[in-house]
Amino acid sequence: MQFKTIGLLGRDADNKVAAMLAELGARLRALGLDVLPAPEATPLSVRTEADRIETELARARPDLVIVVGGDGTMLAAAHLLAPHDIPLLGVNVGRLGFLADIALDAMHEEIAAVLAGRFTEERRFMLHGAIEGSGEGNARGDGNARYAGIALNDVVVQKAESGRMIEFETRVDGSFVGTHRADGVIIATPTGSTAYALSGGGPILHPALDAMVIVPICPHTLSDRPIVVQGGSTVEVVLTHGYSEPAGQVSWDSQQWQALDRGERVVIRRDVHAVRLLHPLDHDYYTTLRTKLRWGHGREESGER
Amino acid sequence: MQFKTIGLLGRDADNKVAAMLAELGARLRALGLDVLPAPEATPLSVRTEADRIETELARARPDLVIVVGGDGTMLAAAHLLAPHDIPLLGVNVGRLGFLADIALDAMHEEIAAVLAGRFTEERRFMLHGAIEGSGEGNARGDGNARYAGIALNDVVVQKAESGRMIEFETRVDGSFVGTHRADGVIIATPTGSTAYALSGGGPILHPALDAMVIVPICPHTLSDRPIVVQGGSTVEVVLTHGYSEPAGQVSWDSQQWQALDRGERVVIRRDVHAVRLLHPLDHDYYTTLRTKLRWGHGREESGER
Amino acid sequence: MQFKTIGLLGRDADNKVAAMLAELGARLRALGLDVLPAPEATPLSVRTEADRIETELARARPDLVIVVGGDGTMLAAAHLLAPHDIPLLGVNVGRLGFLADIALDAMHEEIAAVLAGRFTEERRFMLHGAIEGSGEGNARGDGNARYAGIALNDVVVQKAESGRMIEFETRVDGSFVGTHRADGVIIATPTGSTAYALSGGGPILHPALDAMVIVPICPHTLSDRPIVVQGGSTVEVVLTHGYSEPAGQVSWDSQQWQALDRGERVVIRRDVHAVRLLHPLDHDYYTTLRTKLRWGHGREESGER
Amino acid sequence: MQFKTIGLLGRDADNKVAAMLAELGARLRALGLDVLPAPEATPLSVRTEADRIETELARARPDLVIVVGGDGTMLAAAHLLAPHDIPLLGVNVGRLGFLADIALDAMHEEIAAVLAGRFTEERRFMLHGAIEGSGEGNARGDGNARYAGIALNDVVVQKAESGRMIEFETRVDGSFVGTHRADGVIIATPTGSTAYALSGGGPILHPALDAMVIVPICPHTLSDRPIVVQGGSTVEVVLTHGYSEPAGQVSWDSQQWQALDRGERVVIRRDVHAVRLLHPLDHDYYTTLRTKLRWGHGREESGER
Repeated sequence: MQFKTIGLLGRDADNKVAAMLAELGARLRALGLDVLPAPEATPLSVRTEADRIETELARARPDLVIVVGGDGTMLAAAHLLAPHDIPLLGVNVGRLGFLADIALDAMHEEIAAVLAGRFTEERRFMLHGAIEGSGEGNARGDGNARYAGIALNDVVVQKAESGRMIEFETRVDGSFVGTHRADGVIIATPTGSTAYALSGGGPILHPALDAMVIVPICPHTLSDRPIVVQGGSTVEVVLTHGYSEPAGQVSWDSQQWQALDRGERVVIRRDVHAVRLLHPLDHDYYTTLRTKLRWGHGREESGER
Repeated sequence: MQFKTIGLLGRDADNKVAAMLAELGARLRALGLDVLPAPEATPLSVRTEADRIETELARARPDLVIVVGGDGTMLAAAHLLAPHDIPLLGVNVGRLGFLADIALDAMHEEIAAVLAGRFTEERRFMLHGAIEGSGEGNARGDGNARYAGIALNDVVVQKAESGRMIEFETRVDGSFVGTHRADGVIIATPTGSTAYALSGGGPILHPALDAMVIVPICPHTLSDRPIVVQGGSTVEVVLTHGYSEPAGQVSWDSQQWQALDRGERVVIRRDVHAVRLLHPLDHDYYTTLRTKLRWGHGREESGER
Repeated sequence: MQFKTIGLLGRDADNKVAAMLAELGARLRALGLDVLPAPEATPLSVRTEADRIETELARARPDLVIVVGGDGTMLAAAHLLAPHDIPLLGVNVGRLGFLADIALDAMHEEIAAVLAGRFTEERRFMLHGAIEGSGEGNARGDGNARYAGIALNDVVVQKAESGRMIEFETRVDGSFVGTHRADGVIIATPTGSTAYALSGGGPILHPALDAMVIVPICPHTLSDRPIVVQGGSTVEVVLTHGYSEPAGQVSWDSQQWQALDRGERVVIRRDVHAVRLLHPLDHDYYTTLRTKLRWGHGREESGER
Repeated sequence: MQFKTIGLLGRDADNKVAAMLAELGARLRALGLDVLPAPEATPLSVRTEADRIETELARARPDLVIVVGGDGTMLAAAHLLAPHDIPLLGVNVGRLGFLADIALDAMHEEIAAVLAGRFTEERRFMLHGAIEGSGEGNARGDGNARYAGIALNDVVVQKAESGRMIEFETRVDGSFVGTHRADGVIIATPTGSTAYALSGGGPILHPALDAMVIVPICPHTLSDRPIVVQGGSTVEVVLTHGYSEPAGQVSWDSQQWQALDRGERVVIRRDVHAVRLLHPLDHDYYTTLRTKLRWGHGREESGER
């Protein structure tokens, strides 16, 4: 892969990020690369103007997009770029992230190395989550979705008002799994396994694993534990009861939201698109994990025994 | 204690319960007891008409109220009766409850035994949870609450929209405990320790324990674990950040709700009132616990090892 | 697959099982099948005489072995039969098992159906766990194991005396994962994910998943969470410290045991052999899961909220 | 309280600690205090020579013992001093401890302040755990113990060989709680709630709480959750089954060990002695908790959501 055109993304609301993007743009142009769109003129905002940016990127088709920010910015960028098969490289302006794995102080060296071809590419699969009606005739149909979204971390079905639990049924590949009463359920990719699913008590899934994890949130039945299923599986969640109007809601990466009515079904499967993440050659997943979970530093965490 | 006047409570929306209340009323009157209000004429509805019922009970001051229903009905009845210091006896029309502990098929014998003086009385303390403004000058003040409610199970501070976590600070007896990012936090009594707090990963607190438990819900920091503090402690939760408007919300026993703004403080302490629960002499807390958690039947729950 | 020769296995110490094996043998012979070895003459004992039985089975090479017992008996049978590629069918004399999934009262119909070809076959992979020395030169070597065993559920590295934790390092595919202080660590297959690993807080892995789960036991660091890795991965555990002599120990399916010294390394990877499980056509994994974990029956497990 | 005679304790195996004790002794003598026993001549070793030290301390009766080390040293010192009602002050040579709460670099100032009377005293209760025979006639008897020990953190009943679980029954104040299959069970004080019990999934108990927590270790039944009971309760654990000889074992603070046979009963109750801990006036439990559990630093622990 040879890089000629580089896109830059970051949160322009942050002046520090805007300045970094401007400097980075100037350096890249000095190397003879096309940089688009000119960040100092119209610094890109990820959370607003997403449609315009996606349209521009889809038209300009950069060979690489460098994202300056944190995991949240990477998540937003992944939503924009995955459908266009454009690779991402993440620079972390804060603490080391799970997705943005180039540290700020090594940024120029690491980017230069990647541009020189010294990188690895990793594909992280995304989820496609669609809300379907309750009609039996279209239980499996793709044509019947009233709303569909994609997620790099997770699709979450949960209560709408926070106070009372919801009741729902789950199916995997057409097999009935169970009836659940809980605050909700998280269906997460390996990428998402270290996000909300981890807080909910789920396991860590290695990013290379072709699997999803289903994590009930605060389940009423104490034996209702996380289940890891194949990445190619289809997970269905039918909302059977809730104590509010609407009865529940669905979220995609906590970035898109839809109300969910009783009887509606959410069908989650692997999306056709994947995120292409580039990493410096010395990237190591377990190093990130240790740093984020602070293993090794926490050896005295609980008391003497 | 001698019983002369008996109140009856149950969900009149349920015809079976209404019939049981009518029969029970007739039996009690045949024993020469005053029964109020006549359930066959105006069957009491707990969830609607609560104010009218409370007014009537406060005026009539029965020596005992018998509640026919389940733990949900008992919870509602406790809210009505605790401020008036009237004891409760619970008949369970469904599965054995934590609060309604007389089984349906032994109902008449058990009630007769209680009326004959063969019972024990247990006081379950309640929580008082008040929302106060953010002014420093009144951090401890009782006079500044814009809303206050009582709870037998728990006071919960949580996100308003379900998808994004909230940030809050906790204090116990004036000492700063920590800054948390989570879906919310449950402050539960021993009674509530087997309800939502248990689903959230909290421990079981024996009902005789003078303690509260603070349970973070899906905490971002994995070491953010449940803490049990003294029953006489004052717990403060200040909402410092949220991603929606309003930023969060508070619930009392999942029966009352209030929006919570950034900077607002919820102050939770033991209420001056307690619920008076009567039990048959053979009542045993651990038997209820085993039955509800199905210990002993679950010995083959996980696989051979 | 056509079945001509059927082996029978069960715990002969149990008279009821011995009688069932005798009756089953007679029925199978009446169908014209070869049954070996004659169970009424020398009823097979799984836990004793394992070597003799394995030798006989390896020589006779039955087309199928029917196991009468529970998951424990199936586990023992799997150890005998996996290396010889002989399929197993499990009859459960107690409660429904994860492995022995034919109920006793439907036994003759289900066995007849399987013999008539109405079955599915499932391959459950096993683990190979080898203890290697501490020499750097042979970190990956297969030739250096001082002991090796196979496991269908799990390989467990743990403290030798129960009271003090051990310290160990883990690696996956050569990458350093972390330094841990804990009672031990469970490396489990999907089959084993519902056994000890589940008690230790691990997730359920669907049996079709090509993955292993690494579950720390009572870890000192609270963020030390279960990790699911690819089934083809190599997991290494090096015991770095312990408070007793020997410092630790290793177990294979809790059936074989070896002491482990400081500096020794346990290398766990997928074994070349897999267990071949036959199931009736109506077999469904999630039904077993629901039954074992009693989902749906436990909807009132925690209290009203 | 006026301090005239000061004892010093520390691990003499550690040269750095020995030097610190010598310097501290000299400083205290320069203040006109009696220091015993002269640490530079016979530096005290906690783990060896415990009997001799205890005898000396019981005879000399210092007004205060200063312990230099970590929580492990404090634990050992508490065992020596609690029966003699001698207060302890802990200096931490490593990371901040739950028990040794004077930081090394502020040691001389903090000790001077305490000697000048600027301190608070906290009593931490200890457990008394006795092994009794299986005879019914002496279920409650104190006179029948074949072994008894005290613990500041916990009494643990657990498997003897690590691989197979044990079966046991629990009672609290004579009431049957349940039958359990697990690796064992931890009965912990508030002090011990942040030690092994926390690793086992138990809650944190505030040190002022008059309570114990019962934490099953890797329970077979997933609903077998930690229970907090009153500090004045008597907890009984009867070992009913194990897969090894001996069937199980008991430990007191992981410092004393006894084999446990089938049918034997361990009776745990609050000991008559308590540990007297002195703290500088600015001591705050939650600060220790935050530091040890690293709350507030871990706000980015799990990924973006």
